[in-house]
Amino acid sequence: MADNPSFVLRAVEDVAYEQRAIPEISGDEVLVEVKKTGICGSDVHYLVEGRIGDFIVKNPMVLGHESAGIISKVGPKVKYLKVGDRVAMEPGATCRSCEECKAGRYNLCTDIVFAATPPYDGTLGRYYRLPADLAYPLPDNVTLEDGAMMEPLSVGIHSVSNLGGFRANQSIAIFGCGPVGLLCMAVAKALGASRIIAVDIVSSRLEFAKEYAATDIYLPVAARDGESKIDYSRRNAENMKAQLGIDERGRRAIDLVIDASGAEVSIQTGLYIAKAGGTFVQVGMGNPNVTINIGLVTTKELVYKGSFRYGAGDYPLAIALVAQGKIDLKPLVTHRFTFDEAIAAFKATRAGKTEDGKGVIKAIISGPDFPADAA
Amino acid sequence: MADNPSFVLRAVEDVAYEQRAIPEISGDEVLVEVKKTGICGSDVHYLVEGRIGDFIVKNPMVLGHESAGIISKVGPKVKYLKVGDRVAMEPGATCRSCEECKAGRYNLCTDIVFAATPPYDGTLGRYYRLPADLAYPLPDNVTLEDGAMMEPLSVGIHSVSNLGGFRANQSIAIFGCGPVGLLCMAVAKALGASRIIAVDIVSSRLEFAKEYAATDIYLPVAARDGESKIDYSRRNAENMKAQLGIDERGRRAIDLVIDASGAEVSIQTGLYIAKAGGTFVQVGMGNPNVTINIGLVTTKELVYKGSFRYGAGDYPLAIALVAQGKIDLKPLVTHRFTFDEAIAAFKATRAGKTEDGKGVIKAIISGPDFPADAA
Amino acid sequence: MADNPSFVLRAVEDVAYEQRAIPEISGDEVLVEVKKTGICGSDVHYLVEGRIGDFIVKNPMVLGHESAGIISKVGPKVKYLKVGDRVAMEPGATCRSCEECKAGRYNLCTDIVFAATPPYDGTLGRYYRLPADLAYPLPDNVTLEDGAMMEPLSVGIHSVSNLGGFRANQSIAIFGCGPVGLLCMAVAKALGASRIIAVDIVSSRLEFAKEYAATDIYLPVAARDGESKIDYSRRNAENMKAQLGIDERGRRAIDLVIDASGAEVSIQTGLYIAKAGGTFVQVGMGNPNVTINIGLVTTKELVYKGSFRYGAGDYPLAIALVAQGKIDLKPLVTHRFTFDEAIAAFKATRAGKTEDGKGVIKAIISGPDFPADAA
Amino acid sequence: MADNPSFVLRAVEDVAYEQRAIPEISGDEVLVEVKKTGICGSDVHYLVEGRIGDFIVKNPMVLGHESAGIISKVGPKVKYLKVGDRVAMEPGATCRSCEECKAGRYNLCTDIVFAATPPYDGTLGRYYRLPADLAYPLPDNVTLEDGAMMEPLSVGIHSVSNLGGFRANQSIAIFGCGPVGLLCMAVAKALGASRIIAVDIVSSRLEFAKEYAATDIYLPVAARDGESKIDYSRRNAENMKAQLGIDERGRRAIDLVIDASGAEVSIQTGLYIAKAGGTFVQVGMGNPNVTINIGLVTTKELVYKGSFRYGAGDYPLAIALVAQGKIDLKPLVTHRFTFDEAIAAFKATRAGKTEDGKGVIKAIISGPDFPADAA
Repeated sequence: MADNPSFVLRAVEDVAYEQRAIPEISGDEVLVEVKKTGICGSDVHYLVEGRIGDFIVKNPMVLGHESAGIISKVGPKVKYLKVGDRVAMEPGATCRSCEECKAGRYNLCTDIVFAATPPYDGTLGRYYRLPADLAYPLPDNVTLEDGAMMEPLSVGIHSVSNLGGFRANQSIAIFGCGPVGLLCMAVAKALGASRIIAVDIVSSRLEFAKEYAATDIYLPVAARDGESKIDYSRRNAENMKAQLGIDERGRRAIDLVIDASGAEVSIQTGLYIAKAGGTFVQVGMGNPNVTINIGLVTTKELVYKGSFRYGAGDYPLAIALVAQGKIDLKPLVTHRFTFDEAIAAFKATRAGKTEDGKGVIKAIISGPDFPADAA
Repeated sequence: MADNPSFVLRAVEDVAYEQRAIPEISGDEVLVEVKKTGICGSDVHYLVEGRIGDFIVKNPMVLGHESAGIISKVGPKVKYLKVGDRVAMEPGATCRSCEECKAGRYNLCTDIVFAATPPYDGTLGRYYRLPADLAYPLPDNVTLEDGAMMEPLSVGIHSVSNLGGFRANQSIAIFGCGPVGLLCMAVAKALGASRIIAVDIVSSRLEFAKEYAATDIYLPVAARDGESKIDYSRRNAENMKAQLGIDERGRRAIDLVIDASGAEVSIQTGLYIAKAGGTFVQVGMGNPNVTINIGLVTTKELVYKGSFRYGAGDYPLAIALVAQGKIDLKPLVTHRFTFDEAIAAFKATRAGKTEDGKGVIKAIISGPDFPADAA
Repeated sequence: MADNPSFVLRAVEDVAYEQRAIPEISGDEVLVEVKKTGICGSDVHYLVEGRIGDFIVKNPMVLGHESAGIISKVGPKVKYLKVGDRVAMEPGATCRSCEECKAGRYNLCTDIVFAATPPYDGTLGRYYRLPADLAYPLPDNVTLEDGAMMEPLSVGIHSVSNLGGFRANQSIAIFGCGPVGLLCMAVAKALGASRIIAVDIVSSRLEFAKEYAATDIYLPVAARDGESKIDYSRRNAENMKAQLGIDERGRRAIDLVIDASGAEVSIQTGLYIAKAGGTFVQVGMGNPNVTINIGLVTTKELVYKGSFRYGAGDYPLAIALVAQGKIDLKPLVTHRFTFDEAIAAFKATRAGKTEDGKGVIKAIISGPDFPADAA
Repeated sequence: MADNPSFVLRAVEDVAYEQRAIPEISGDEVLVEVKKTGICGSDVHYLVEGRIGDFIVKNPMVLGHESAGIISKVGPKVKYLKVGDRVAMEPGATCRSCEECKAGRYNLCTDIVFAATPPYDGTLGRYYRLPADLAYPLPDNVTLEDGAMMEPLSVGIHSVSNLGGFRANQSIAIFGCGPVGLLCMAVAKALGASRIIAVDIVSSRLEFAKEYAATDIYLPVAARDGESKIDYSRRNAENMKAQLGIDERGRRAIDLVIDASGAEVSIQTGLYIAKAGGTFVQVGMGNPNVTINIGLVTTKELVYKGSFRYGAGDYPLAIALVAQGKIDLKPLVTHRFTFDEAIAAFKATRAGKTEDGKGVIKAIISGPDFPADAA
């Protein structure tokens, strides 16, 4: 087992299996045998576009960053982990000495080595090296698949709990019912939301959201011919408020709005329905240039926050909420693939469904030596 | 002196002096003889457009809301004020029992009675009635003109100190060198800023800002033909960063960005130069629909906050900083008018300068019985 | 029904029924027919001692402040309430214009008119007058007895949620299993605590706590002859840590400590077990002079906060958590009395049990015209 | 220059010069030639008692931790420092991977290697090894002596700015006019305090405080025979309030109280004068067991916080405020010694004065190769 087969993006639309050297670990690192890896929209984006914003794939790069595995080696200084431990893998190793790292906001570290963000290799191989403190042991009732899901769940934790400051009995509206949107709903539910409103333009996604975690769903009205986006969004917001009983103040107000869609009209609509003095967290990303109504931001004194990855305490909270049964990740894993089927997994995620028509929420690829149906 | 001459906006572009009843005061109110009133852009806006957003002038309305005066009568329950006291007048009386009022965010109260915001009359008359706690005694070394300036200064306090959380040794960039922008600079200086960068498209305004409070000034580069606003803003930001030595992290980063211009390219440029993890406060208002790059907001985890009027503690801090000599309001009062000259005052503010070519920062109108040159 | 029979404390150990005038209400007030009133330790304290700290009973005073009732009259300015509404009554009417009120901390208002705090009459009569915003409508599934319990529950909400900042997956230790301690546990459970440790010196109270909300219980070891309190507390804390698996850092640390006992050794022990960087909220009150180890406070950078009554948002959250079924108040109401039996209710609360030996957690007295067994 | 002479505490009251090996540095470390070291009360405490709390000197230990020096060697990974740079030395190297470090509270790290805290050697030698990010370059107008003073100044920054949240126009009372108390005053002044009240039982120290930074001083009244400490403190507080015009609410209230004395009566008095809703930061340490009135803590909802060393951002802010001329450290350095005179420096600090009767605030010892009068 000295080899390290890896799934590599060589260029736009060009992936292949390659052998890579097994990483050497230093004193406070561990080597993890990767067992489960979820496919993220960003992996697909690199495959199709070769870049995300200023991050450009210039050299072959192993894909994957949503992973869990089993510790196969520990450095001599590692205290709390041992070979055989099942762990969720936080995929960003930071410098630990810049101003941001020391102030507790390590996700803003510029020297971060983040899996499958150019130029750094990802986790879709047999082995991945991690600083020990980024490998989080999984309780017995948490599967390796759950472990792989801790990465997107931490995005939800970061957005809803950490940045959104969401608390028991608050209400939330979440635009976009993809994996991140659904996980934000799951977090809100686990934190004791009084109301969780899911918004999406696809009915079947709304139905899933309702069954999974939402208390209310909203299917936007159709835009009219010639209507500007912002006019449409205002009208859509008014309709949403009337239909669901939403005010901008008082007990029917929405404490927190999350946009997990990246769609301009979602963001616009969200600002219209947000509570005066409320918070809006932007976690989704589409076309970056978005027109917003700053009059809403000023007169309602909204706080519009960007959310980027996750930080201190996010992984531990994600794992705890799953272990306590407050979040169930299993319904979100709709498709499973062996390591040899990685190309099919990407194809399905890209299409949003498999050939049998079944919609993909999250596709998980097993490690080279792990069957696709083992959790 | 039983009459109450008032300066009334009757319709768009139609103002006149009218007699109004002297307000009756209740137990915890005071009656103030208004002595000094500054003209605000919003007063001019109502004159010219008849509306600001959803606030529409439907009936004749007394203009003016930036005022100071002398207590002429006190209700029987008033404890801390007496006839003859010189006071700054906070022009928004709130309900004190809604969720927002009770939680300490009274500027978000929907039942606020705000001077010269339809349908409520403003302060440009002889008398104005106020709840006693909104009449702030002026220390001896603070003039009535200073007192009238406490209103826009409180906007600066609210934006920079309260919402911006600005502290000693932090750096700030302020877009727009009108009265609010300049007052934000004054606040930042009083709070111990290490660096205050003023941005404006008019050189003379930058020169004034530099002399008044800014440590650095920036005149935007010109846009190129056919360049999109967002492309221009990125280029402008890069130029600004190079010219002034600004980074997005570390000791040369800008802790707080304030937009006091309302201009789309200012907001766009501000987001490019903001520090990762930094705060951006929107206080200026122009065309409400503005295109922003949300990729900057998310990857830098920016906090973009709207600022609306002022709240608990803002007036007291404004008065204290002036009384302590940390803020000098006098350079900002460029023009003075008697009550009879109110139309000329509006004309000058609207034009941005008087016929002699002197630029208007703030024009102050004296009360009916008070000479224009008395402070 | 023009009379207003009231239960009055005339002097130490001297209570009697008296007729009082029915209060006149002003425009924004309501008159409530009081239906259920819980007896609080402070009521008993006034009965026995005639004072609590600087609050001294100098004139006859109606007792009672934990009440719910039915609206019997509304002032002309009242918008959201009508005659017949069932409401929980927040018993402190504040000035709404001091610095504290306006900044959102109205429980610190010095001009507060608080029921049954000298010199103000309490709620143990047929009628009580309240500002309308302090009368909170009860959802249909919340009883009037629950409504009376909202007062002590709000103390728990204020301590655990508001001041303690308690969030899902955090751990808490609560010293003292009286009504306030138990309600703090209920709040912690409703907010998603991972661990709730109850501490008391009476085993039966611990058993109740375990059944009600606690996940762990701790019965302190006995003090040794001649052992100083602080030495004892350290030893007790070490024993508690070993027995329950508590560390001062890491995943087994206690995020929040609440003292609801007022006992010196509880406070001392609590500081020893608190997490580094953790919070300790003091809500209980006994002998005010308490010796603490400030070395623990400094080297662990503890935050030790006093909790006083409740403030903005506390009543609404209390009601919501009960209505949602996250908090069950019924097990805490152990004894019920008619209005005529008020003396017996005080006697039972004072003794901590009734003659049949049944321990009192909370005794509720019905209004003059309401049967003791109607909820 | 291969040797490393060091000033070593061998046992209680037993110090000597010893040769130590020159530390080897790793990739991201620097070797600093120590040029200036201030003597701290804790150094003296170890000399006299051999322990501070649970920290016990079991093996010979180099003393000193308030130092500045010149970079003599840099590890290969060090980016921002070079040989010859003048730097302030933050003396605590943390693990960077525990929960506290990652959450931005590294001063609570249990694995901290802190200079001259057993079992770790201090800085009173020729060389000291530091992680590069803990060596802060000094601007040209900041001397090496200033650099050594950055350690106690950072304690003041941490207490006043970071934990105390002190802001412009706030008022502060500081108990204890030793080095830390004086530095807290300097910080409060630099941050724009409206009022700085110094309290000490030694008149000459108060006079110095007044000259240095305080706006008001208070010399406690004498205790009466048989008066309990807590009774005395209440009377003392009442006297202080009357004499200086202090209220517990409103514009004459004290926003922040700092105890830099560790004396029980100071802490007690401080709680009596603190503002309702105010903050009290405990930075001084004497006998750890202190009796406080928790009734004050609860009814005023005080926040009593412990302060331990310093954390993220404290050194940079300290250096910036000195470089900007807002804090002048020079008046505090009352005595200077060569490395060979270290014993005399300790003797003077211990006595609080030199043989000529001159009071010691801070004694600075030069490095082995640096004259005592070079700054």
